[in-house]
Amino acid sequence: MDYITGVNKKEILELSELLDPKLEQSTVKVNGTVHTIRDMGEVAFVVLRKREGLLQCVYEEGVTQFDSKTVKEGAAIEIEGVLQREERAPNGIEIRMRKVRLLSEPYDTLPLTISKWKLNTSLEAKLDYRSVSLRNVRERAKFKIQEGIVRAFRDFLYGQGFTEIRTPKIGAKAAEGGSNLFRLDYFRRPAVLAQSPQFYKQMMVGVFERVFETAPVFRAEKHNTKRHLNEYTSLDFEMGYIDDFTDIMAMETGFLQYMIALLEKDYAKECKLLSVDMPKADKIPTVRFDDAKKKVAEKYNREIRNPYDLEPEEEALISQYFKEEEGADFVFVTHYPSKKRPVYAMDDPANPADTLSFDLLFRGIEITTGGQRIHDYQQLLEKFTNRGMETEGVEQYLNTFKWGLPPHGGLGLGLERLTMRLLGEDNVRETTLFPRDLSRLEP
Amino acid sequence: MDYITGVNKKEILELSELLDPKLEQSTVKVNGTVHTIRDMGEVAFVVLRKREGLLQCVYEEGVTQFDSKTVKEGAAIEIEGVLQREERAPNGIEIRMRKVRLLSEPYDTLPLTISKWKLNTSLEAKLDYRSVSLRNVRERAKFKIQEGIVRAFRDFLYGQGFTEIRTPKIGAKAAEGGSNLFRLDYFRRPAVLAQSPQFYKQMMVGVFERVFETAPVFRAEKHNTKRHLNEYTSLDFEMGYIDDFTDIMAMETGFLQYMIALLEKDYAKECKLLSVDMPKADKIPTVRFDDAKKKVAEKYNREIRNPYDLEPEEEALISQYFKEEEGADFVFVTHYPSKKRPVYAMDDPANPADTLSFDLLFRGIEITTGGQRIHDYQQLLEKFTNRGMETEGVEQYLNTFKWGLPPHGGLGLGLERLTMRLLGEDNVRETTLFPRDLSRLEP
Repeated sequence: MDYITGVNKKEILELSELLDPKLEQSTVKVNGTVHTIRDMGEVAFVVLRKREGLLQCVYEEGVTQFDSKTVKEGAAIEIEGVLQREERAPNGIEIRMRKVRLLSEPYDTLPLTISKWKLNTSLEAKLDYRSVSLRNVRERAKFKIQEGIVRAFRDFLYGQGFTEIRTPKIGAKAAEGGSNLFRLDYFRRPAVLAQSPQFYKQMMVGVFERVFETAPVFRAEKHNTKRHLNEYTSLDFEMGYIDDFTDIMAMETGFLQYMIALLEKDYAKECKLLSVDMPKADKIPTVRFDDAKKKVAEKYNREIRNPYDLEPEEEALISQYFKEEEGADFVFVTHYPSKKRPVYAMDDPANPADTLSFDLLFRGIEITTGGQRIHDYQQLLEKFTNRGMETEGVEQYLNTFKWGLPPHGGLGLGLERLTMRLLGEDNVRETTLFPRDLSRLEP
Repeated sequence: MDYITGVNKKEILELSELLDPKLEQSTVKVNGTVHTIRDMGEVAFVVLRKREGLLQCVYEEGVTQFDSKTVKEGAAIEIEGVLQREERAPNGIEIRMRKVRLLSEPYDTLPLTISKWKLNTSLEAKLDYRSVSLRNVRERAKFKIQEGIVRAFRDFLYGQGFTEIRTPKIGAKAAEGGSNLFRLDYFRRPAVLAQSPQFYKQMMVGVFERVFETAPVFRAEKHNTKRHLNEYTSLDFEMGYIDDFTDIMAMETGFLQYMIALLEKDYAKECKLLSVDMPKADKIPTVRFDDAKKKVAEKYNREIRNPYDLEPEEEALISQYFKEEEGADFVFVTHYPSKKRPVYAMDDPANPADTLSFDLLFRGIEITTGGQRIHDYQQLLEKFTNRGMETEGVEQYLNTFKWGLPPHGGLGLGLERLTMRLLGEDNVRETTLFPRDLSRLEP
């Protein structure tokens, strides 16, 4: 009988293992993909791309046992050689090659020059050749940082007593109303793709008190802007037993602080590669919607056109204002007008035309919408009625309130937008692995 | 200017904090939902449901300042009272109530009796009233354990140098072929929902070497069985630079070992609540597909009807065989026939009718399919041609091989099925928060 007993330790060493000073002058085995070759005649520098970074290997005529077709750009190879210190090489080490073994070979030269420091190509080409463009070490570093953001979100919330949930993406009805929905045929029944896990996470507050989800959402919006996607990752949480909606903002601030610390610790290499200008989140100013509008109208001599919503330019100016006045990277804008917020938003008892809700702006763009929700059954039912909204198909959601839900609130955070602003990119597609927009459905 | 500076410490204590012996006899504040009330006349036991468990509170006539409508089942309340040891209460403590504040009240009695140890109701009723049935502490514990499984998957793979990726769920083409796809209209273009992240994770092996994703997948299968869902969570990984397909099985075994340790450590309370019979994964037997068929045919006197696939009954018998012969909870079945595996599966050079692939069976049911993939461009193209498959729409996938990919393989693991078998349930809907099947699209 044969058994599998767990992960086997391999002879092959990863980059972080090679940095052990004890290995100097010893013979090691490594593998990787040939990232670039610089041929100097009797000597050639072969740079391997490994998951942790680049590794310089040196071919020497007469020393390296070598088959000419083995070493070409894009080939996956295994090398046996002697590890040496070399200050001019990446990470300060190089491998003097002895033996080379071909693991896999390419059939064509790459359509992009990925070994350049900056990929010198258009966004369209980057996206068309996604599996190649991401082989550029700076391009791929963006998505390591994105991993770090999600990891921080989860780890922070686990620590705060949240439970991770998984809610369905195909449903009969939508959480936010009827517009912007992708529709599909579900065994001859009409169905839609979830534009938000809103209803489900509220229903689960009655079970777990605090819940979160990190999952795709789908919006059939016909915008083709630099900040909209038709499928994106929403970092969502919902928490019960709040005193008021500032508890939600406090939790988000705690997450941002945790995220910054995690990125600085575990993703320092990638942050350095991309020269990330790490924001500060030790104290985030809050400003009421109306005040924010007035402040930027005054300071930047700008007319208020729409009193019920923020135009993208206004969001940018509010961010600029708080950067100039307070040195702030983030700003919470609170008390959005009720008519622009979804039915489940809690209206401010002091002024029912406003809601106990907020957006978080980060360097000029909205990355989060959140707030307190209505938890009283009668109050919620009234608001559905006042807005002329159907309750058909959302009975299970509404009944949950009839059977009791604590005061609660939550938020949704757009992962790709947060990554975009953190990395100083101006198009959300730069920080999306395989973006979906009006024109792009492939790869 | 007002600022938000991070999570505020609250006066309210959680269950784990209340267990601090230093708090005995002191006045504390807690909140929660009234789970059950036992009225003894001058004394009443009010059990609060909190996210960490149940907390007994004691109402005493004349001592508790009390408004009769405040304390009813389903109400969210805040209590101020004196903490005392009480061996007969859950967790050995109780709160002698002084003040009660109503946070939120229900408008109707619950449709299910959730305070019973076992929810005495049908699966249909459980699913129809999902936001209520999960308030039963054993029902909700299932999903804490499910959280632990996913957490273990991620944490283990982070530690093994994997990168977490997010691949699109809407696409132009499918990874596995044309059947079982949900179709939708994407801005007047035909599109499908992803049945697997297969093509994307392979493309990303050339970038990150090792990748994983934990996300929903969609299968328009018309089965209505106890083990099929039309939307489920797939735990997927793909890894480059493998020596052979046993590396994939070794990695999965490592994950299972890590998962068992994490559940025993961080989810001990839930495992105890559900009397989880924790499996062993220190050594997992492997058996070839053909041998497995023969073994069960011989031992259980059973005819082999279909030599190319395993019937559900055969899977159950193979598990039974290895439980009886080896005391094994898991068994890897290897070398599945090529004609039953997808186009990208690597055929066995020693016998091209077989593949270098495997399924993992767990207590009678398949929970994982995995194996080595073809990494050579010409070989993959030939297999597409031999099967008469179109390459239109999958050019970006195929080109990735033209530009070089290392030897690699991976697997997909059905989260709900793994949870089901771990908890000894016999219907996958029992371990799905909001299942989607042929008849169920709500809640």
